[in-house]
Amino acid sequence: MTLPMNNLGIVRRNIVRADRAAVDKLSKYGVATIHEAMGRVGLMQPHMRPIYAGARLCGSAVTVLLHPGDNWMMHVVAEQLQPGDVVVAALSAECTDGFFGDLLATSFRARGAGGLIIDAGVRDVKDLAAMGFPVWSKCISAKGTIKATLGSVNIPVVCAGAVVNPGDVVVADDDGVVVVPAAIARQAADAAETREASEAGKRKRLAAGELGLDMYSMREPLAKAGLKYID
Amino acid sequence: MTLPMNNLGIVRRNIVRADRAAVDKLSKYGVATIHEAMGRVGLMQPHMRPIYAGARLCGSAVTVLLHPGDNWMMHVVAEQLQPGDVVVAALSAECTDGFFGDLLATSFRARGAGGLIIDAGVRDVKDLAAMGFPVWSKCISAKGTIKATLGSVNIPVVCAGAVVNPGDVVVADDDGVVVVPAAIARQAADAAETREASEAGKRKRLAAGELGLDMYSMREPLAKAGLKYID
Amino acid sequence: MTLPMNNLGIVRRNIVRADRAAVDKLSKYGVATIHEAMGRVGLMQPHMRPIYAGARLCGSAVTVLLHPGDNWMMHVVAEQLQPGDVVVAALSAECTDGFFGDLLATSFRARGAGGLIIDAGVRDVKDLAAMGFPVWSKCISAKGTIKATLGSVNIPVVCAGAVVNPGDVVVADDDGVVVVPAAIARQAADAAETREASEAGKRKRLAAGELGLDMYSMREPLAKAGLKYID
Amino acid sequence: MTLPMNNLGIVRRNIVRADRAAVDKLSKYGVATIHEAMGRVGLMQPHMRPIYAGARLCGSAVTVLLHPGDNWMMHVVAEQLQPGDVVVAALSAECTDGFFGDLLATSFRARGAGGLIIDAGVRDVKDLAAMGFPVWSKCISAKGTIKATLGSVNIPVVCAGAVVNPGDVVVADDDGVVVVPAAIARQAADAAETREASEAGKRKRLAAGELGLDMYSMREPLAKAGLKYID
Amino acid sequence: MTLPMNNLGIVRRNIVRADRAAVDKLSKYGVATIHEAMGRVGLMQPHMRPIYAGARLCGSAVTVLLHPGDNWMMHVVAEQLQPGDVVVAALSAECTDGFFGDLLATSFRARGAGGLIIDAGVRDVKDLAAMGFPVWSKCISAKGTIKATLGSVNIPVVCAGAVVNPGDVVVADDDGVVVVPAAIARQAADAAETREASEAGKRKRLAAGELGLDMYSMREPLAKAGLKYID
Amino acid sequence: MTLPMNNLGIVRRNIVRADRAAVDKLSKYGVATIHEAMGRVGLMQPHMRPIYAGARLCGSAVTVLLHPGDNWMMHVVAEQLQPGDVVVAALSAECTDGFFGDLLATSFRARGAGGLIIDAGVRDVKDLAAMGFPVWSKCISAKGTIKATLGSVNIPVVCAGAVVNPGDVVVADDDGVVVVPAAIARQAADAAETREASEAGKRKRLAAGELGLDMYSMREPLAKAGLKYID
Repeated sequence: MTLPMNNLGIVRRNIVRADRAAVDKLSKYGVATIHEAMGRVGLMQPHMRPIYAGARLCGSAVTVLLHPGDNWMMHVVAEQLQPGDVVVAALSAECTDGFFGDLLATSFRARGAGGLIIDAGVRDVKDLAAMGFPVWSKCISAKGTIKATLGSVNIPVVCAGAVVNPGDVVVADDDGVVVVPAAIARQAADAAETREASEAGKRKRLAAGELGLDMYSMREPLAKAGLKYID
Repeated sequence: MTLPMNNLGIVRRNIVRADRAAVDKLSKYGVATIHEAMGRVGLMQPHMRPIYAGARLCGSAVTVLLHPGDNWMMHVVAEQLQPGDVVVAALSAECTDGFFGDLLATSFRARGAGGLIIDAGVRDVKDLAAMGFPVWSKCISAKGTIKATLGSVNIPVVCAGAVVNPGDVVVADDDGVVVVPAAIARQAADAAETREASEAGKRKRLAAGELGLDMYSMREPLAKAGLKYID
Repeated sequence: MTLPMNNLGIVRRNIVRADRAAVDKLSKYGVATIHEAMGRVGLMQPHMRPIYAGARLCGSAVTVLLHPGDNWMMHVVAEQLQPGDVVVAALSAECTDGFFGDLLATSFRARGAGGLIIDAGVRDVKDLAAMGFPVWSKCISAKGTIKATLGSVNIPVVCAGAVVNPGDVVVADDDGVVVVPAAIARQAADAAETREASEAGKRKRLAAGELGLDMYSMREPLAKAGLKYID
Repeated sequence: MTLPMNNLGIVRRNIVRADRAAVDKLSKYGVATIHEAMGRVGLMQPHMRPIYAGARLCGSAVTVLLHPGDNWMMHVVAEQLQPGDVVVAALSAECTDGFFGDLLATSFRARGAGGLIIDAGVRDVKDLAAMGFPVWSKCISAKGTIKATLGSVNIPVVCAGAVVNPGDVVVADDDGVVVVPAAIARQAADAAETREASEAGKRKRLAAGELGLDMYSMREPLAKAGLKYID
Repeated sequence: MTLPMNNLGIVRRNIVRADRAAVDKLSKYGVATIHEAMGRVGLMQPHMRPIYAGARLCGSAVTVLLHPGDNWMMHVVAEQLQPGDVVVAALSAECTDGFFGDLLATSFRARGAGGLIIDAGVRDVKDLAAMGFPVWSKCISAKGTIKATLGSVNIPVVCAGAVVNPGDVVVADDDGVVVVPAAIARQAADAAETREASEAGKRKRLAAGELGLDMYSMREPLAKAGLKYID
Repeated sequence: MTLPMNNLGIVRRNIVRADRAAVDKLSKYGVATIHEAMGRVGLMQPHMRPIYAGARLCGSAVTVLLHPGDNWMMHVVAEQLQPGDVVVAALSAECTDGFFGDLLATSFRARGAGGLIIDAGVRDVKDLAAMGFPVWSKCISAKGTIKATLGSVNIPVVCAGAVVNPGDVVVADDDGVVVVPAAIARQAADAAETREASEAGKRKRLAAGELGLDMYSMREPLAKAGLKYID
């Protein structure tokens, strides 16, 4: 993966999207479950929050690299969208401007996009919520942007601390955003399924009053580590 | 405008409020639209958030300058309020204390005030939401304040990065807070109306699948800037 | 109170919980009212926010000291819970990981716990909201933790800037979290009751248009302090 | 002062600089002293820090409004500089990019500028220190900017929370940055002189062991406020 | 320890300072060494930084609780100082104002105080450095404070996340600030001495090229944990 | 590049380091120059600061992924170091603990390492400065870490927002940290040389009083963009 010196001002039209069946299966599980199932990697930083509670999103990433205060490439990326895609917008430097509002959402939706993940600000959030267009962003800001600088579309990006390659699966819910590399999407979905099943059993036992101390056999390792009970 | 050395401990009673018709017209448009229509100036920083979703506010600013941990002047400002006024509270230094709660809101409402914009904390937010008293603040904090230091009422202030003069129009919604100088309120309202109308047309075209690339004639400037498409 | 050098790896089983009647009485008042009634002490920092609007909590603190990235002690603390307890989780250093989710909530609830206060992250927030399990936290993060290091249970801790001793009363609502030392819980509850009663009367007068300036007799001290009115 | 709708893309060539004698006199006093002498107004936020310890600056403000990621106007402002001027650069939205480095500093210095105050990032800080070119900034960043958007020169701006009008006196040292409106520069300088003289006397008495409690006659008001001594 | 409802407006005159020999011995060791020797507790948050590089401080804590924007109690605490004392100033809520400058430092020094730890701002930092008066603070700000509200002196406080009781030993250097409870000061000093001696030997072996992997016998536990080497 | 599900608990022993001549050439240029020469990519976020002024570093990256509060892998990475290597330590989640001090620095130096880049805290900074061991970090903290969890060595990591592959060239100075992919190191070094030469000429002209407006031929595009001069 070579990010610099040949990646600015580029639009990659043909990308390999993650296996549809894997995307569908991943869409059933929560971000926390998938993140655990993958071995605790791929999570975006916790400043990425949904603009309305209860939003959910799962799809193939179409990536875009933006510069502070400039959303020109958001119009370029629109043309590359296919139904079910998720736009992942990374910034070349920190910015809180509102790069996206209801007009762009209308355009993205017309192309079938499922939602947006952006490490910057968005606006028209009431309209976006009314449209049911899910967005995870760093902040909300009414400040618009200019259209003067080239970024790129469908190059590998770092968004909120996570590497995203075009075609990777992106899953987002109230707990945050996780990136599943396309190559392991199926494997991750299976692992999530297994974990979910395992958790269902545990939930029942815990609800019945069994303690994690016993269910996970923690008493012996805790004692070995030196835990002391005092009355 | 001379802020220092003659502005502490002052209450200006007679201020010129923005033209009522302009305020009424501005109240129909969103913060993002007005901010764009004015040429992207006058916006408060994005840390100013409504205490409940869906809050909206538009009115003439009555300003107050407070000091950290001291809300004495909030009682002084109450007396200066007229129906439809919006209190804009600036701080002489950063503070997260809760300067305002349901008692003051009751008093402000009794005078006809529309709401509060404060670059600090507020409390009793559940009661404020139940009253439908809209507030945009930096944070929420149960910590109260003392009443010991003089600030001023109806002097020019800097609130969350924006200059506010008494009588300016303040508009706030889920996207943030924008300040419209009284002298250009009518002009700004007209510009917002124009922009809104223009956006309605664009929304329809984008929903029908037309791309911003074509609608805004961006393909040529993008090519000139060096954008390359790769398959 | 000696925090260091003898407090790691310890579980205190017998703690003296705050007087039940005092807890019940405190549960009727808001955090802002109690904080005022106590003389403005005991409040946690304002970054502690409920994971869903309208959450309320009042109970006896069972404390736990955690280390960054490690939630082992959350399982240890579960065994010490009694009906109505509130778990107060402090961190030995700043961390945003998700230390708590729906499985632990199920276990805590099975023991009768009322909720959780944690100066770190939690996850499964949609499930927690559906369960009606109230949590005040620093952030939300899907990132899980390991189980490798001993902390302690029921030692004095500093949580979000406030000292919490096991058995103290913890009250939390939309305005934040306040800690009432067990020894003064009754006294604080009475003071809150008095304050609430006094506020009801003031609210009525303010709603009728009386100004705080007059109700609190502020005009004279303001004039003495040098306040000038200008027309 | 009307900030919006007529102030973008403007360069005001003729500004009235503060009285030279007042500037010279102010240059003798520290920021804290001047800020106190003015009644505690006009201070920029404390995130504004010098790029090297011991830097000092005092001069007439030439203002520039920049947009995130774009330093085009820094070249426009250079032409407007006269010996002793201080460039005050405000941003239309938060940005950490490096807007200024040793080339621009060379150009500013060639025009006689005394230094720079910028609510964003700068770079080449080692070179700037070697040149003895003083800068107060929000941060340091190697990231450069583009030249595509018009801002304005010599309009009133809000920089790090303080209003700065072209021609105002700006004083900066290790304690921060304070703005003295041109109209009161002389008055502020005199007040600073008075305060400094008064402090010299107090310093001597305090060094000799006299307590502030006695020197400022605080014992009686403290007792009245209710202070209790316990053995 | 009861913080609330009886601790405001109090000055405790007689406190038990930590054993002088223990203080002297602790003064030889770094903050990191002492913190490790105590089992990693008692450290203030890392935002506490010295105002000049190379500052060092070790002494008995005299505590003071301040309110935002008000440094009245700094004059009260001055009278309680004895040679070698360290003033630890906590805030009832976050504030960045400059509570302390060269006049107060002159007074503190006249009483023999060693330095100041304050979870807020200070000013006159150039003078303080010239005096060699060490201060660890949250920030630097030229903004002064008023003298209107009572806090307390020599009550237990929470400063930058750490509990400090009057008489505790406070040690500060370039790595931060650590609090050693008076009751275990001797024990902590001995543990620091032991650790320092052990580190000297390790330093020699590491400098000679021995790896921590071998010196600490980590290879087997790493292999057990599943570490895999790939060529 | 596949980060997840197969990259934890792995140490890659054989990595291809960047071409030595390219590293040597890059070591002559500043971070800002290299960043510009590469087209403004590869820069770490500006919170990465040197622990002492004037530090400089250029070498091949050996990467390590750490978990919050756990520095076990720092001992593992030590064994993989070769003369001139730079350790780049990324975190799986935000943490301010001190992962590195003078003992590890002694070990790293014994292996020939040039310095450390870490997106977390370090300690013993006075000793590190005395050793002349350069470190760029997010913060300074005396708080140590445990040794309990596996991370990985020489996998691709995201450090302070930048992707770093093992063997990439890392250059750091007072302006920050930039990553040059190994594959383009030579090309980047040549581009930096060209830029530096070009800047030398410009510096001379600017010092002689020529304006950037003329040197860069900006007057026409500024006029076209609508810039207006007012007297």
